Amino acid sequence: MSRRAAIIGGGVIGGGWAARFLLNGWDVAVFDPDPEAERKLGEVLANARRSLPGLYDAAMPVEGRLTYHPRIEDAVAGADWVQESVPERLDLKHKVFAQILSALAPGALIGSSTSGFKPSELGSGVVYASRIMVTHPFNPVYLLPVVEVVPHATVAEGDVQRALQLLTSIGMKPLRLRREIDAHVADRFLEAVWREALWLIKDDIATTTEIDDVIRFGFGIRWAQMGLFETYRIAGGEAGMAHFLAQFGPCLSWPWTKLMDVPDLDEALVQKISSQSDAQSGMRSIRELERIRDNNLVTIMRGLKAQNWGSGKLLNAQDKRISRLPETLEDVADLSRPVVTVDRAVPLDWTDYNGHMNEARYLQAFGDATDRLMLMVGCTAEYISSGGSYFTAETHIRHIDEVHAGKRIHVETQVILGEGKKMHLFHRMYEGDRLCATGEHMLIHVSLETRKASVPAPQVAAALEKIAAAHKALPMPEGAGSAVGKRA
Amino acid sequence: MSRRAAIIGGGVIGGGWAARFLLNGWDVAVFDPDPEAERKLGEVLANARRSLPGLYDAAMPVEGRLTYHPRIEDAVAGADWVQESVPERLDLKHKVFAQILSALAPGALIGSSTSGFKPSELGSGVVYASRIMVTHPFNPVYLLPVVEVVPHATVAEGDVQRALQLLTSIGMKPLRLRREIDAHVADRFLEAVWREALWLIKDDIATTTEIDDVIRFGFGIRWAQMGLFETYRIAGGEAGMAHFLAQFGPCLSWPWTKLMDVPDLDEALVQKISSQSDAQSGMRSIRELERIRDNNLVTIMRGLKAQNWGSGKLLNAQDKRISRLPETLEDVADLSRPVVTVDRAVPLDWTDYNGHMNEARYLQAFGDATDRLMLMVGCTAEYISSGGSYFTAETHIRHIDEVHAGKRIHVETQVILGEGKKMHLFHRMYEGDRLCATGEHMLIHVSLETRKASVPAPQVAAALEKIAAAHKALPMPEGAGSAVGKRA
Repeated sequence: MSRRAAIIGGGVIGGGWAARFLLNGWDVAVFDPDPEAERKLGEVLANARRSLPGLYDAAMPVEGRLTYHPRIEDAVAGADWVQESVPERLDLKHKVFAQILSALAPGALIGSSTSGFKPSELGSGVVYASRIMVTHPFNPVYLLPVVEVVPHATVAEGDVQRALQLLTSIGMKPLRLRREIDAHVADRFLEAVWREALWLIKDDIATTTEIDDVIRFGFGIRWAQMGLFETYRIAGGEAGMAHFLAQFGPCLSWPWTKLMDVPDLDEALVQKISSQSDAQSGMRSIRELERIRDNNLVTIMRGLKAQNWGSGKLLNAQDKRISRLPETLEDVADLSRPVVTVDRAVPLDWTDYNGHMNEARYLQAFGDATDRLMLMVGCTAEYISSGGSYFTAETHIRHIDEVHAGKRIHVETQVILGEGKKMHLFHRMYEGDRLCATGEHMLIHVSLETRKASVPAPQVAAALEKIAAAHKALPMPEGAGSAVGKRA
Repeated sequence: MSRRAAIIGGGVIGGGWAARFLLNGWDVAVFDPDPEAERKLGEVLANARRSLPGLYDAAMPVEGRLTYHPRIEDAVAGADWVQESVPERLDLKHKVFAQILSALAPGALIGSSTSGFKPSELGSGVVYASRIMVTHPFNPVYLLPVVEVVPHATVAEGDVQRALQLLTSIGMKPLRLRREIDAHVADRFLEAVWREALWLIKDDIATTTEIDDVIRFGFGIRWAQMGLFETYRIAGGEAGMAHFLAQFGPCLSWPWTKLMDVPDLDEALVQKISSQSDAQSGMRSIRELERIRDNNLVTIMRGLKAQNWGSGKLLNAQDKRISRLPETLEDVADLSRPVVTVDRAVPLDWTDYNGHMNEARYLQAFGDATDRLMLMVGCTAEYISSGGSYFTAETHIRHIDEVHAGKRIHVETQVILGEGKKMHLFHRMYEGDRLCATGEHMLIHVSLETRKASVPAPQVAAALEKIAAAHKALPMPEGAGSAVGKRA
């Protein structure tokens, strides 16, 4: 059964809502008087189509139908949910609500994306205020899950529950506030940080770049996985949250911010916070929380590493500084032996539910080994950007022994064949001198323009032939040439 | 040449510094009067050894030597760098600095981990204040890269540069403040958020859990990769930062926080911010920034998915809701045909420098296909926790055609053999009806206790035999049984 959402206001936020509903299989009816609305929403939708479906390990439903309507009433007719994302002017919102309500189907509900207004303000003087609630999302709405939910006081509890279920069904994390307040919760934090940041720039303490860096290389990484209180609970250690609060308390009277209205951290507030924190995290010891935190931080930073961004870019720069692997054939001490192409520790995020390195990570390590050999024969980033590269055509992996997180592994690479378009490699992965796996790979040189096989540039061909010739005297590796379940 | 760091105060912060120096190859000499110091620092070090080395794709240097000293002077003697992390009492810090300075080698420098004191306070009345600077890190120090650097006014510029290089060499991101200020930069933000959070809890707007969730399901994910200003630059769109500021400006007079000391957002400040933002991000268009942001957000959330934590746990729950793949053999409509075991979009973080799905991700998809088949024959999470599982022994992948991010792929799985300890599978990966790759896999049932081959439980053996028998009539897949570079 297809469901229909009306999107009233299709800018960055409304467009994000539209994309989230559509990709979750809802039909979406848009009203936006901006003559550029279709183009703008199309751009948001393109971003969403590119990024959202791959977040999941299951296929999303078939996309719903997108329609544009010149009148609010037409967009709203037959909708199960109406999302209002018009500019932040209360008089405008009241006018829009009146039009929505005139066409609203029985049982349909209205969410407002307002970042600042309280539901009592939204519903003031509006007929059927009991259909209105704040559902405040974050940009990009198609990716970030959180949505603050604050129903008008007259909304029936059953309707609130329906809204929470609906938002969950489109992949969101609805958080219902206990009481209404200006700007809800998240934007109060953002506003506090914003005000402090304005002071820091005005007073020439730091620039926008430096402020951003202090966030994304520091507490921002922590906050992607644990919030303020769970983070501080860990900082407080086994002594617990109340102890931490006692230590932190005096800072409230120090000039640590220009924003100085401070609540009294009395016995009652300390007790309230520590009992809430116990309910939140008390089922886990501090050691357990530390391990979870570290797993998450490693995962996030290694993810950003693959994107070569922020803290991940920093890690890549450090890799370059500390790596002792050869970069060219000239760096290899003894070309007549297999060459070391990987030398690293197994990251925390490479293990799986069996408690050992996941099978795909073996291929990741062998892929890194292949990349290093390619680099050594001159298939550099510069060469690749000039239009040539090697693609793996075939791979054979034998898992011989287990490897665990934190262990140091290395890969030794033997070139079995290197001529014409072909590069045939055999990798052996060791922990110390224990053989853990082998990887046999056939790569083909391709033109990145035609995506078809092509001969490598002469200097690459020559370097590859040189190492292949040097390895020719080595015995054929045990396991080379064998098929799954059969010996060679 | 080994270098030596003196760690004065070895708690959570000092211990984190010790771990970072040690794992980066420095000798570390610790002074801490706490009789439990060795045990506590040992726990931090264990966390660091578990998590830090795997952050890199290159092996870290050989660990330095760790020693404990009963006197500050002994720890400091011969050190190139002294890191002070004693409790936040200025009189205590002054006393400690006096002892450090009495034993400090020529050219050695002192970093203070103080989160609150300004260098002018640290150096007040201290002989050789010119050796002292604030180097304020974040917990866990061994993982989080940022360190705020604020030299005392008398520190020579060359010494500041040496400190910045030293901190960079141990994998950190030093951020030098332009002027000293109470609590430096990051802790001012944290303090502002903390004060606002205290109000929200006191006024019963939200609990600690709800506050943490609004952070880690929302702006916390954004801040792991872009800070306040780059994020708002994107929100402002093509109209630019000055336009965004003009829109955002009026909020400063609204009651969006209890913390109400507000700078005047005059022409000069708007100009300052927008020109700094241009210098920071102006080389990239808003579209480009959006793509980078979305790549990062997808990468972070998918990373947390593998950890089943926070926004990643939410994605896993949604996977369960939307998946239409069979969970048991009974769910399979036609057992006589290969069964669909993966149906998904290719995530943004699965592509590589060649612009297509990375080879290791093929094995990840095939591994997921294997996991689904295991689930269908009753090798569930519960079965695995009871001590049995299948480990992959051997894999043969043929890359037949390229796949790109965002494309929908599915895997069809044929059971070639399922008897005794063996499970022999053949996966075909398609985009639509275009064959992109095949994966042939031999799995062996193991006891997770002995880590040795073992027979599966009867119900698993029976289910596997049932699907193997049903697939027996299927033709042997083209490519099965072949070795790298050879036809079967």
